[in-house]
Amino acid sequence: MPSIESSGTARIAVDAMGGDYGPRIMVPAAVKAAREGVGIALVGDESIINDELAKLDVTGLDVTVIPASQIVEMNDKPADALRRKKDSSIQVACRYVKSGEADGVVSAGNSGATVACGMFVLGRIKGVMRPALAGIMPTEKDPVVLIDVGANVDSKPLHLFQFGLMADVFARCVLGMKRPGVGLLSIGEEEGKGNAMVREAYDLLRDSQLRFIGNVEGRDIFTGDVDVVVCDGFVGNVALKLSEGLAQSMGRILKEELKSSWLSKLGTLLSLRAFKRFKKVVDYAEYGGAPLLGLKGIVVVCHGKSNELAIINAIRMASTSVRNKMHEHLAEGLAAHKGRTGTTESTSQTAA
Amino acid sequence: MPSIESSGTARIAVDAMGGDYGPRIMVPAAVKAAREGVGIALVGDESIINDELAKLDVTGLDVTVIPASQIVEMNDKPADALRRKKDSSIQVACRYVKSGEADGVVSAGNSGATVACGMFVLGRIKGVMRPALAGIMPTEKDPVVLIDVGANVDSKPLHLFQFGLMADVFARCVLGMKRPGVGLLSIGEEEGKGNAMVREAYDLLRDSQLRFIGNVEGRDIFTGDVDVVVCDGFVGNVALKLSEGLAQSMGRILKEELKSSWLSKLGTLLSLRAFKRFKKVVDYAEYGGAPLLGLKGIVVVCHGKSNELAIINAIRMASTSVRNKMHEHLAEGLAAHKGRTGTTESTSQTAA
Repeated sequence: MPSIESSGTARIAVDAMGGDYGPRIMVPAAVKAAREGVGIALVGDESIINDELAKLDVTGLDVTVIPASQIVEMNDKPADALRRKKDSSIQVACRYVKSGEADGVVSAGNSGATVACGMFVLGRIKGVMRPALAGIMPTEKDPVVLIDVGANVDSKPLHLFQFGLMADVFARCVLGMKRPGVGLLSIGEEEGKGNAMVREAYDLLRDSQLRFIGNVEGRDIFTGDVDVVVCDGFVGNVALKLSEGLAQSMGRILKEELKSSWLSKLGTLLSLRAFKRFKKVVDYAEYGGAPLLGLKGIVVVCHGKSNELAIINAIRMASTSVRNKMHEHLAEGLAAHKGRTGTTESTSQTAA
Repeated sequence: MPSIESSGTARIAVDAMGGDYGPRIMVPAAVKAAREGVGIALVGDESIINDELAKLDVTGLDVTVIPASQIVEMNDKPADALRRKKDSSIQVACRYVKSGEADGVVSAGNSGATVACGMFVLGRIKGVMRPALAGIMPTEKDPVVLIDVGANVDSKPLHLFQFGLMADVFARCVLGMKRPGVGLLSIGEEEGKGNAMVREAYDLLRDSQLRFIGNVEGRDIFTGDVDVVVCDGFVGNVALKLSEGLAQSMGRILKEELKSSWLSKLGTLLSLRAFKRFKKVVDYAEYGGAPLLGLKGIVVVCHGKSNELAIINAIRMASTSVRNKMHEHLAEGLAAHKGRTGTTESTSQTAA
């Protein structure tokens, strides 16, 4: 494995209009990232962005504003957003990367539209059959990368294999893992368990240069004993949203119970620091967003409800991906498994 | 909808040898259920079972012992368990139901083998294409039934539709729900979201007599706003095990954090009652086991780690299913949708 060396600076186009809170959160988050040395292009309604910037001290920072007149709404269909909103902030941001003026995009807007714009504007790295969303989730130890969390449904075994290759590169380049353990999400640990797709993907992963640790089950995701978990985008999306929903429900139940008597209220006060750390561990904001891997450019898709910290962390992740040359390593990783990953099919399917 | 009337008594065959704790837990749990009026047949090694019974007061209880000389181990393959262990406790228990001497089986042994024995020994109700495991999970409000949690992989849209029909009947007959809201697990709420299988199943469910509430996402499972969630067994198994794993991980993290200072330790002591209730809400033992729906006889599959309470609750569930005539209602439910559920295919596939 080549070692990961960090160099240069990154310039990130931030979709200032996306997310539940829009420019109010996106602009200050981007400015804070700029203070850490990241070049920032804020894309969206110029006057709104400038109003937000006026509240902040941006002296000496590399922050520019790129105008875009349209906004993709949360309920817009991705295909409509692509065709009918060519001047939307997310599409303009992607074109800004395509033209080489920025290295990556961060958006908390409509996820489907962000994925679609990334795929069709930026296009895929040569050899990549299906770009995939990598969800990064907290565990009891290091974070785990779940891939794909919803960019694709009805995947084929070769797609799953490539998801594993791409997430391995991401985990090494961006999360700093030395040699990630890659597991295949299934419904039993033994080889041969799972559905038809998973059984075929197992063979491909086993015979690769990855550190493949075999099948893992739903209960293994959060123990921290596996670094990368490979699955179809349907399963991954269900798993991601279920985890988020369950963590929130458990938090709410605990809160209700702890409020139910004055004794437990007092107890909670005394344990407040512990609860804050507990919340941090189960908080998606810690990791910021899900990188869409396999495109000619970095795209990080953030949760609509992202707060400032989540956006800053997403911009940091995009910047690290650029500085650590994730794309070169991705291309190398795919080339090393060329015979196996069906590059012929993929080339003929490359998005325009 | 016909109203559910309870009548008569039930006789349940308990696989005394199954589960991580075997007869030590299974026998006392079964005896406690017998005290509530359930007829019990304990199946397994006679001398071990009798040793356990000798420790308990069984005067006047309807408890018999049915000998079985073999035990299915946790790592036995289901097909091997079927063919090579014809005198195993789980297979003998299923035959005991087949012969009409008992109405249902409860086992905490090898789940795959239990499902296989149930399917091949008992056979399917006429019209059922694929029996399915219904996982019952705690939520912030009433429990939710997730179906299928692993009896099938590579399901077809018609199978998913039947899972919904069967779980609706179970929720009404056994959980006492009046008119359960049935959701389809997908990766977006709008019609047309999801993979090919889910999109076709959507149409079947929408046009049925069920109270279909449309697509639900992973994050909706635990809010308590949906009563039945329909999915393929691969997705459902991942979801079930992930929920269990995440709840345990969160519990461990919280415990660690609360132990980290004397202040929070004191706080925890004061909040102890609240934590106990929290644990109860996220505890699978509350619901006991997963019924395998669609067979000619009741089969409840329990977690290997089941404690006494979980087994008692599983026996109660089996008994309620019998007394509330779940099977008659299942057959009625399927007949009401006959044109749609492809009964021709199913009849030709009925297991021997």
